Amino acid sequence: MDNFDFGNPTRIIFGRGTEARVGALTAAHAKKVLLHFGGGSIKASGLYDRVAASLKAAGVEWVELGGVKPNPRLSLVREGVRLCKEKGLGMILAVGGGSVIDSAKAIAMGAVIEGDVWDFYLGKGEPAKALPVGTVLTIPAAGSESSTGTVITNEDGQLKRAVNSELIYPRFSILNPELCFTLPRFQVACGAADIMAHLMERYFTRVENVEFTDRLLEATMKTIALKAPVALANPRDYDAWAEFMWAGTIAHNNLLNTGRVGDWASHDIEHEISGIYDVAHGAGLAVVFPAWMKHTLAQDVSRFAQWAARVWNVDADFADLEATARQGIERLEAWYRAIGLGTKLGDLKVGTDRLDEMASKCTDGDRHTVGNFVKLDKAAVRKVLELAK
Amino acid sequence: MDNFDFGNPTRIIFGRGTEARVGALTAAHAKKVLLHFGGGSIKASGLYDRVAASLKAAGVEWVELGGVKPNPRLSLVREGVRLCKEKGLGMILAVGGGSVIDSAKAIAMGAVIEGDVWDFYLGKGEPAKALPVGTVLTIPAAGSESSTGTVITNEDGQLKRAVNSELIYPRFSILNPELCFTLPRFQVACGAADIMAHLMERYFTRVENVEFTDRLLEATMKTIALKAPVALANPRDYDAWAEFMWAGTIAHNNLLNTGRVGDWASHDIEHEISGIYDVAHGAGLAVVFPAWMKHTLAQDVSRFAQWAARVWNVDADFADLEATARQGIERLEAWYRAIGLGTKLGDLKVGTDRLDEMASKCTDGDRHTVGNFVKLDKAAVRKVLELAK
Repeated sequence: MDNFDFGNPTRIIFGRGTEARVGALTAAHAKKVLLHFGGGSIKASGLYDRVAASLKAAGVEWVELGGVKPNPRLSLVREGVRLCKEKGLGMILAVGGGSVIDSAKAIAMGAVIEGDVWDFYLGKGEPAKALPVGTVLTIPAAGSESSTGTVITNEDGQLKRAVNSELIYPRFSILNPELCFTLPRFQVACGAADIMAHLMERYFTRVENVEFTDRLLEATMKTIALKAPVALANPRDYDAWAEFMWAGTIAHNNLLNTGRVGDWASHDIEHEISGIYDVAHGAGLAVVFPAWMKHTLAQDVSRFAQWAARVWNVDADFADLEATARQGIERLEAWYRAIGLGTKLGDLKVGTDRLDEMASKCTDGDRHTVGNFVKLDKAAVRKVLELAK
Repeated sequence: MDNFDFGNPTRIIFGRGTEARVGALTAAHAKKVLLHFGGGSIKASGLYDRVAASLKAAGVEWVELGGVKPNPRLSLVREGVRLCKEKGLGMILAVGGGSVIDSAKAIAMGAVIEGDVWDFYLGKGEPAKALPVGTVLTIPAAGSESSTGTVITNEDGQLKRAVNSELIYPRFSILNPELCFTLPRFQVACGAADIMAHLMERYFTRVENVEFTDRLLEATMKTIALKAPVALANPRDYDAWAEFMWAGTIAHNNLLNTGRVGDWASHDIEHEISGIYDVAHGAGLAVVFPAWMKHTLAQDVSRFAQWAARVWNVDADFADLEATARQGIERLEAWYRAIGLGTKLGDLKVGTDRLDEMASKCTDGDRHTVGNFVKLDKAAVRKVLELAK
């Protein structure tokens, strides 16, 4: 186990009806806030009205900024920063999924500086402070409701970049599984694949003596593996959603990588696919991960076999751990298909003519490698993409 | 799953040599602190010198208060409160185990009020603020390094009482598994039993649809079950200690009871044993828990069978879940014995002549019940004690 620092201050308010508490929770931080959201779904569902009523009752005023899109845009972030500065807003309240929350975190960093928040995403300096962020989560997926991360796309040049900072851990996140009952099936499947990826990226590590976090990761993977299909089959099953949603937060709140180093090559490779093609992040991960596994299996067959046996209930063949591992990968692929996702580039309508371009962009023209479990150069990334054909 | 609020702000600094960071971590909160510890072991081991050097390097001054005993005393807490007020100290730095940390938390609450801190323990009012507490943990056991709890004994009347408050979550806790290499074996065994009890108290719940936290609890129990004996057999095995220590903190930091209601009758019953006899808390729990299980098994045989199969690798007999459950209890008892603890009152040199008195005190003269999984009245507590003979 590696040395580590871990602290996550986000307060989770979980359960039925908990959005009614957003006003009081917000008022503890600011009396004038930016209410940030996506499209019209929170208005259609009545969530907007309930949030507004709670804010009013708590004496919180707000300025609205809707319109966040998947792969949240820098232009809207800049608009949010301008509003915060002009109107003297003291907090960003994000009502939505990972994109809305990522956008809110960017605004929170930008609102307290003179310069351009995009500089942080380019690695020019680090944030020294940020406005507080609170969230009402509407879909289990990105884990941004209790994470240090924000990913923003600069539409000038199609650059997608991330910032990680403890300053942008949300102060509170409200998780009501009831809000998930009306989500589109494909979005739910992508969310489940995203969560599973967060867990697998952490699981496949070269750090030794991490049995405790192995077991916590296995517990969380098993929960997602079992509960996501139930929630998809029975969209009003509160109990299935509750387990799915809480596991989705724990998957990405940094607890499960304490003392270990995750891989993250599959995320990097997927970003290149969705950077060129119009592919949902979770759907892309369902294609990349099995291919990545087939390529990296030999690195640590016993770890893959352990994962196959403990998460996917593969009956371990101790004389042939590789066969055990491969059965695990097959069960992962079957799980993706069962929740409605494809596992091949063709399923995403992604052709094979630009694999070299993607491999090159992913490794900055073969100038660096991606991944930690196995370091992949351009040729290796290309091989992973070939395995996804 | 029940609705819940969860937030734990304690920053964990984990790993080899991490006590060297105590000065910088402390200086972020205060420049003049109370350094609180137990007996001479931290001086003998050199830990005291390393902590002092780190504080000095960070420009932190301190006043010392040693002498904390197991079952920490109110008189020493009052002495600490007086020192903090007189010398204008801004933080309590606890270097030791659960008793030292519990004592530090009490001082932290007492130092900022006019009245007597014992009132909080008597339920007269709740703390509205507290000085910050930081810790350097020397044994995995009580979980106080990342919990809301403090238990103090008022030696006038031998009253042992607890306070729980989010204000006393330590701001940081330093966990270096190397500090455990020289611990006495019996103390280590008691610590392991205490951690296992924290997990079992949470596991046996009547709240339904808690599969995710069930699995996290099972993962943590399995880690303690496997790693505590290894650390005992090889006291300088860093890797075993690291898993044991981190699992011990997670066992009691409130994550694993999110959405569920724990039992806690075994803790209440054990407090009556150690209140009369000179028994270590963990050793008492090893006697009470198997008896409690035999008494409550019928409440939810399938939960006990699940625990036996998943934690203790009992080969489940699906036609006889009770037999499966009983095998789990036998394996728990065998585990206690393997780490050097007895499982009967006689092993603690506790006679059977005062069982009625203990049952009566535990239930306040049969005026209330203890436990949530099964509510035990005086007769039921007496029955549990009989089963421990």
